[in-house]
Formats: sequence, C-alpha cells, structure tokens
Amino acid sequence: MTHTAASGIAAFTFEMGVLKRLRRSGWWQVGVRDPESVAEHSLRVAQLAALLAAEEGADPARAAYLALWHDSQETRITDLPHTARPYLTKPDNVAVTKDQVAPLPEAAAATVVDAVTEFEAQETPEARCARDADKLECLVQAVEYRHSGQDGVQEWIDSSYAALTTDVARRVADAALTQSPMSWRG
Amino acid sequence: MTHTAASGIAAFTFEMGVLKRLRRSGWWQVGVRDPESVAEHSLRVAQLAALLAAEEGADPARAAYLALWHDSQETRITDLPHTARPYLTKPDNVAVTKDQVAPLPEAAAATVVDAVTEFEAQETPEARCARDADKLECLVQAVEYRHSGQDGVQEWIDSSYAALTTDVARRVADAALTQSPMSWRG
Amino acid sequence: MTHTAASGIAAFTFEMGVLKRLRRSGWWQVGVRDPESVAEHSLRVAQLAALLAAEEGADPARAAYLALWHDSQETRITDLPHTARPYLTKPDNVAVTKDQVAPLPEAAAATVVDAVTEFEAQETPEARCARDADKLECLVQAVEYRHSGQDGVQEWIDSSYAALTTDVARRVADAALTQSPMSWRG
Amino acid sequence: MTHTAASGIAAFTFEMGVLKRLRRSGWWQVGVRDPESVAEHSLRVAQLAALLAAEEGADPARAAYLALWHDSQETRITDLPHTARPYLTKPDNVAVTKDQVAPLPEAAAATVVDAVTEFEAQETPEARCARDADKLECLVQAVEYRHSGQDGVQEWIDSSYAALTTDVARRVADAALTQSPMSWRG
Amino acid sequence: MTHTAASGIAAFTFEMGVLKRLRRSGWWQVGVRDPESVAEHSLRVAQLAALLAAEEGADPARAAYLALWHDSQETRITDLPHTARPYLTKPDNVAVTKDQVAPLPEAAAATVVDAVTEFEAQETPEARCARDADKLECLVQAVEYRHSGQDGVQEWIDSSYAALTTDVARRVADAALTQSPMSWRG
Amino acid sequence: MTHTAASGIAAFTFEMGVLKRLRRSGWWQVGVRDPESVAEHSLRVAQLAALLAAEEGADPARAAYLALWHDSQETRITDLPHTARPYLTKPDNVAVTKDQVAPLPEAAAATVVDAVTEFEAQETPEARCARDADKLECLVQAVEYRHSGQDGVQEWIDSSYAALTTDVARRVADAALTQSPMSWRG
Repeated sequence: MTHTAASGIAAFTFEMGVLKRLRRSGWWQVGVRDPESVAEHSLRVAQLAALLAAEEGADPARAAYLALWHDSQETRITDLPHTARPYLTKPDNVAVTKDQVAPLPEAAAATVVDAVTEFEAQETPEARCARDADKLECLVQAVEYRHSGQDGVQEWIDSSYAALTTDVARRVADAALTQSPMSWRG
Repeated sequence: MTHTAASGIAAFTFEMGVLKRLRRSGWWQVGVRDPESVAEHSLRVAQLAALLAAEEGADPARAAYLALWHDSQETRITDLPHTARPYLTKPDNVAVTKDQVAPLPEAAAATVVDAVTEFEAQETPEARCARDADKLECLVQAVEYRHSGQDGVQEWIDSSYAALTTDVARRVADAALTQSPMSWRG
Repeated sequence: MTHTAASGIAAFTFEMGVLKRLRRSGWWQVGVRDPESVAEHSLRVAQLAALLAAEEGADPARAAYLALWHDSQETRITDLPHTARPYLTKPDNVAVTKDQVAPLPEAAAATVVDAVTEFEAQETPEARCARDADKLECLVQAVEYRHSGQDGVQEWIDSSYAALTTDVARRVADAALTQSPMSWRG
Repeated sequence: MTHTAASGIAAFTFEMGVLKRLRRSGWWQVGVRDPESVAEHSLRVAQLAALLAAEEGADPARAAYLALWHDSQETRITDLPHTARPYLTKPDNVAVTKDQVAPLPEAAAATVVDAVTEFEAQETPEARCARDADKLECLVQAVEYRHSGQDGVQEWIDSSYAALTTDVARRVADAALTQSPMSWRG
Repeated sequence: MTHTAASGIAAFTFEMGVLKRLRRSGWWQVGVRDPESVAEHSLRVAQLAALLAAEEGADPARAAYLALWHDSQETRITDLPHTARPYLTKPDNVAVTKDQVAPLPEAAAATVVDAVTEFEAQETPEARCARDADKLECLVQAVEYRHSGQDGVQEWIDSSYAALTTDVARRVADAALTQSPMSWRG
Repeated sequence: MTHTAASGIAAFTFEMGVLKRLRRSGWWQVGVRDPESVAEHSLRVAQLAALLAAEEGADPARAAYLALWHDSQETRITDLPHTARPYLTKPDNVAVTKDQVAPLPEAAAATVVDAVTEFEAQETPEARCARDADKLECLVQAVEYRHSGQDGVQEWIDSSYAALTTDVARRVADAALTQSPMSWRG
C-alpha cells in the first residue's frame, strides 16, 4: 500500500472519530442533557440489524455492515432533528459518502459507497433489517431514558414503531416496551 | 417468531446498551476524566476492520462483523486494564458470550457465538484484520487524546503498534502518528 | 394577559431551554468532547456586543439584544458546522423565527422578529457589533480551548478574525491572542 | 482604541467565560449531578425579561440588558445557595461589578455598572421584569428537571413563584406548571 | 526523608488519583450514564463508618480509616460488578495493596497494609462498621438515584440491606428508605 | 438506637452526599470545564494525611480523620474561591458543623465536631498533617491537570507549596513536581 493510501485511511479514520463526540440531537429536545453519541447509537443498530437478519433469513454480517455506515455522513452534516425538516432539504447521503471516501484507496472506498448505496436504496432484505434496526434502537433507547426518569419519550417510541417494516422488529419492539431494561440480568 | 424469542432479543439488546455507558478504563489511568465508551471504540474498530480487510483482500463485512462483537462481553465483566492482569485470570470470552446469548433464538445466538469464536481463534484473515483494527483504533484514539492536550499516551501508542500483525495496519498507524486528526477537513 | 398568551410564552420559554443543552458542533470536529452550549456562547456574544457598541458609539443594550436572539433558531435546526455547507442550503433565520414566535402574544412576538430581522440585515451599527461579537466570542473560546490543551483551533481563530468588521473587535482579538485567559485575575 | 483598552476588554471577556463553566449550585442540593451553568441560566433570564417587558409595556431590550449582567459577579463569588445565608453576608453586587470593570475603557465600564446598579435598585419596570425573569427561569428549569425525573424541585418552584411581582410572570408560571416542556413542538 | 521515599509517596498519591476518575460500574447496568466515582463513594463510606462506630461504641477514627482504603485496590483492578463473578476469581485485596505500597517508605506502607488487612479479616468492630458503611452507602446512593428518577435500583437496595450486620446500620437504612434525600435541609 | 437518632444519621448522610456533586470551584477559573468534586478531593486529602502522619510520627488514622471532615461544611456554603475573599467574610467552620450535626445522636455529633475543631485549631501534629495534605492534594491535582493539557495551574502550585508547613510534605511536593502522574505504573 502506498503512503498516500495509508494516509487516506488515517484521515478517514480520524473523520469517523467525530461520531464518538457527536450527540443524537433529538434527545436534547426531549430534555436529556447528555444523550448518547451517534457512534453509540450506530453500534447497537449494527448489532440489532444482525439479530433481525438472522431471524428473517437474511445475511447478518451484511445487514450489520449496512448499519455500520448508515449515519457515517453525520461527521459533516451532524444529526438533524425532525424539527429541521421544514427548513432544510435532506442531504444526499451517497453524495456525502463519496466526498468522505475520496482519500481512501479504491477497494476501501468502494466497500463503503456500496454499503451506503444499498442502505439508501432499501431494496434488499439486509437493507430493510438495517433500517428497522435503526428505528428499533431508537425505540429501545427511549425505553431506557424513560427507565432513567425521562418523561416525554412517547413520541419517539410511536414514530419509531410506526416506521418498522418487519414482523420480527415489531415483535421485539412489543417485548421491549413491556419488559425491564434490566431483564437481561435474570 | 415466538414471544419468548422476541423477549430474548429485547433482553439481549438492553444488555448491549450497557456498552454505551461503560468507559474504556485504561484512559482513566492516563488521566482522561471522561474517556470514550466501549461502544464508541467498538464502532470505529468495526469500520477500521472493514477498511483493512478491503486492502488485504479479505471480506470487509465479515471483518467488521467480528469486530462488532469483540468487546460485547464487557457488559458483564467490564473493560479490564492491563494493570489487572497479575491479579485476575483473563475470562473466556466465548463462555461469556454463550451465557449472554442464552435468551436469543437459535439463529441469532449462533451468529454471535460464531463471530466471537472466530475472532478469538485468530485463524482467518478477517479475524486478524478485526484484531489489528482493535489495536489501531486504540492508537488513533491515543493520538486524538494527545491532540486534546493529554500527555502520557505514548505507552498506549507503543503497545498498540507492537501488536499489529498486518502491513496495512502498520502503514496506517505510521500515517496516523504523523498527520493531524483534522487532516480529513482538507 | 389571556391564558393563551401566557401559555404561548411558557411554550416559547421551554423551546429556548433547548439552547442550554445544544452543543456548539464545530468543536467536536476539533476534538473537544464536551464543548460549551449554544446558550453559553450566546450569553457572552451578547455581553461582548454591548462592550463593542459602547466603544463604537452604538447602543449597547440594542447590540446585546440582537445578539441574544442571533442563534435562537438553533432549537429547531441545531448548530450546523461549516462542513455541512456543500450539502445543505442555509435556512432562512427570519422564517424560522416567525414559526417559533407563533404562540407568543403580539408585542412579544414582534420584539423577537424585529431583533432577528435587524441582525440578519446587518445594516445598523448594532447589528454589526452583534455579528462581530459572534465571531470574537468564537475566537476567544478557541484561545480558551487552546489554554486547556486543545490543538487544532487555529482555523477557528483565523476564520473568526477574518470575519471581523470593526476596528474595535480586531483590537480586542489581537489582545486576546496574546494574553492569558487568566489575565483578569490580576 | 488604545491597546490598554483592548486588553482590558479581552481580560473582562475571559472573566465572563467563567460563567460558562460555573454551575448553578442549588440543584446539587436537589440531587442534579450535572446542572446547567450560570451562563445558560442567564441567557434565558434575558430572553424572558424581554418577553415580560414586551407584555408589561416596558422596554424589552433594556430589561434583557439588565438580566444579561445580573449574575455576572459570580465569576468571583460563585453561585451561593440559600443554605449559605446564615453563615455569609450577601456581597454587594455593585461593588463586585466595579472591581470587575476596572480594566474596561470608560464607556464600556459605565454601561455595565449602570445596568447592575439599575437591576439592584429594583425601581424601574425593566428592573422588575428582569428580576421576575430570574425567578421565572428558575421555576421553568425546575419543571424541566422534574420532566427529566428529578424529585424534590417543589421547594424551588414555590420560592420562585412567591417572589414574582408582576401579573404577567405569575400567569406564565401558572402555564409552565401545567403544560409539557415539549409543548412548543406542537 | 530520602528522595526515594518522597518520590514513592508522590507515585502512590498519583495512583490514588485514579479513584477520582474510576466510576462505580454497577450503576451503568442500572442505566445511570454518569455515576459517581469510587473516590466519591469511598469518602462517604468513611464518614458513615465513623458515625456507625460512634453509636456502636467502637473507634470512629479507626473505622473511618479502614473504610478509607477499602476500595483503594481498584486503581489497578477497577470496580468489578456482580455479573463478573462467574467469570473472574475475586482478587486478593491484601496482595494488591502490598504491590501498591511497594514504593512507600516503611511506616506509610505499614499503616495502609494494616488497615486493608484488618478490613478484609472482618474481625474487629471497626472492620464491621466499615463494611456496613460500605453497604449502607450503596443503599443511600440507590435512594438518591431513585430520587433523581432512576428506576431499577431496588436490587441494589435489597442486596445492600441484606448484607448489613449491625443493628445501627439497619436502622439507618430503614430511615433512609422512608425519608427524603433533602430531609437535612429542614 | 431510637428512630429519631437513625433518622438523624440518614439525614446527615444525605447531606454529605452533596459533596459528591459539588465541584472544586477554583479550577473553573483556570479553565477546567469538569473539575473533580469536593468528595474526590477530600478522599485523597485523607489518604495523604495518613501518609504524612506516618512519616512524621503522628497518628495516621487521626490525621486522616481530621481530613475527612475538613471540607464537609461546603454542603451548605459551597467551595469559595480565593477571588471571593474581598467580598465575603470567611464563615466559621465549627459553627456550620454544629448546625450540620444537630440531627445526629450525641456520640456521632461529638466525634464530628471534635474533629473539625481540632483541624481548625491547627495545634496538634495530626491537624498540621491534615492541613498540609489539603494543600499537597491541590498541588498534585494541579500537576495532573497540567498533564492533561491544562495551562495556568502554576499559581495553584505556588500557593499550595507556599502553605506547606512540614518538611515531609515539601519533599513529596518536590517529587510530584518532577515525576510523571503515571510513575506508579512502573
């Protein structure tokens, strides 16, 4: 690998580091002072995408992979809340991604653009699992903030639930809404 | 899907949520008061694993997938720093994972256990890319903390670098050590 | 005052509360994990606007007043960093403000819209002082983050400095760049 | 402007920066681990002062201006909670302000001292609106902390409400106590 | 004192500084994003140990002293939650302490080792008061987190209560469970 | 123990919990956004007091005990920075303590008042070790903040050093100023 390629990967890696600091902005409107980062959200989306895919007979690793990159554009455009919609046209995530991967060597650039393109097109089962995982993660986080005392999360639960497209995701949502965030401790 | 299966996925998802709060403990020893979470670390490890795999001719999605679960055991055992080694025997991550996935339906459980087993065995190119990504992410984060003023990160840089096994990862590390964390901004 | 008017003021006040939680997003790109809020920025912009106006022979209270509302639209559209510009058209702040003040009684609504309109038009000395204060506050904060160890703030200093339009603001910037953030302690 | 004057404004601006870090101490007694800063409080007090003045037929910009400086002394004396009163005599805010503005050029110094003096005297409608805004902001914040799960805020609501002097402020308080902090989202 | 002795005390003091950053990990499982540090816990344990000892007719200063060091090993092994127990053998705190005090001069080393040894042996009234204080502090903190809106703390209350061995501690726990965390404000 | 006594201990314990949230205010003036709590400071002061006493031939447990309570009054009066001195008369810590312990049963109240009284009088070796530990802890923390990139801590180092009264403390300070905060890791 050339130094230019290595340097491009390093630069892109530093850019992805912004996701560790960027906060999920919708929760500020609910009243959460220190909400989770986009990176924290994205990791669980990827994990959930794999679980949904496993149950839907799709490819878990591919579904997780699409999820891994689904918010990676936010290093440049941040996490825009729903209230911004009347005032801003939604940016084209594939276009942002293409600019982001410009310093990457060819194979690395291609794998990221392909993943974002497939996610945005929403035509494969893996893309649908990844998108359902995105909504489901938000719903689960809303339940967790409610468990920590936060009021006003119902709108987030409702809009996330309404956006689910697979039966598996809806059933997991139903379960998450009625059991404790500490249920895993047995 | 049965309600039991859905409830199991929900419980496991809540458990993964602990990774959003769990801090990377080594940085406390360096002096960082509010270090990044294990989830934040893991997301970038998965992203980096994909990039390394793309350049190594391995499967990016698979490498990312192994990375996605590589620290997921820490919900139960936390992130143990190197200083704990003389006093604690390293837990068996596959065993922890098997307990964690107990509530999951069969296909979901299998995909997670397989990923952790493959990562721990370190016999496939994807496993090696994921492990190199784990070390490289730590090195990149050390550079970022140094950029934020933190002294004393050199030991983390050195031990991460020494553990790298692929030429690609070493070259990215070399680049990251000499360019600015803001180099992506052009 | 009718209950509807009082309720409108209460709702608008709750909306302004979002500014207390919303972070200044550019600093995340520099590497600051926990940057100041938009409210914290805005308060010092207003204070600085008054000081600049006093020295420029403009009305300090009016300049401060324009500054007080200059980022108030960000409750809905958040703080967009420069990197978003190629992908998003800048929203019309007066239009956002008009939607925000819709629940306010007439006099209250008018005073806010007038202030935002005057600030955006940049035709009065007070508007110019407020805008210079906005840039100067960013420069001063950059110096403070550098004092706390953060590297990479120079771009923010340079772009803020370049945007200053009054001689007074430039001289204060020159001073801030060469003296300690603790110089006030004597 | 002389360099001494510019340097004085820079020093004073650095001092005002302490308000961005200083926390409102009363909330620690209630149980809030990470309460808002004095700067965050002050910004909304200034915004509220303008709204109250608009409805009271007073000057919104002037009322906001008095609010802008009403806690600026706390850079030196911090935010003293009510429990300190039996042990400490309340400092003279005008005296503190005069020391703070010592490095400022004459016009800048005068505008700040005049504002603090007018606020402390409580003889103008604008001073009364600013003081009511101070109390009302505290009440609204108490409602917001309660919305985030915090118990024990009633004492802050009651004492803030009891201190209100204008009918407009009381009516806004009544509304804030019965509607959701998210009511602005429509 | 030799320079080696002074340097050893300095090194040990820096090590104890890690307790200021280390978080109490169990609360992450409950859902608390920013829980208190081990140092914050330890201080109140020491204070409570003194109060319990005073009422039990034991030596308050000695009981507090044992509490002061009871978690000091966690600089190296961190705070392991209950869920780690099936996977990790509990480290020997006296052994960790002996390694920690290695750089200290003799008298200083001995006083710390003696305190940890006495606490671990649980044979003196002071050791029992210190251990009860450890459990009681956790219970009181659980009540405080519940007061801040956090659900799911009951398990921590129950297990802490069950571990109490003195009648005094149980009576204080009974009181803490039924009165407000703000009861001290009168 | 009567219920009144138990309830008094519980109330006092809740009051001490405020120390876990209260920040050390001087660091805000230096530029530290999230400084350590008074509880975190106090724990290490107590540990250091014991080490100094061990080397001075004084009673380590007694010295630690005095340190344990030396800032406990700050639940009511907060941590006043040096800049407040011209405007506020220093409160009488023994008087504050007597009010704080009012709900405690007799023996518990006496042990706290005795400790604060002995510390304030500064007539015993243990009181001097505790006070030196207070200053030394501040100096060590300043070194740690400098290690994390913070500039401007020299004034804190100098004033802490100048206040040291024992040779042992001065030698430890000398060592702390020249070795790394990570020197304990070997």
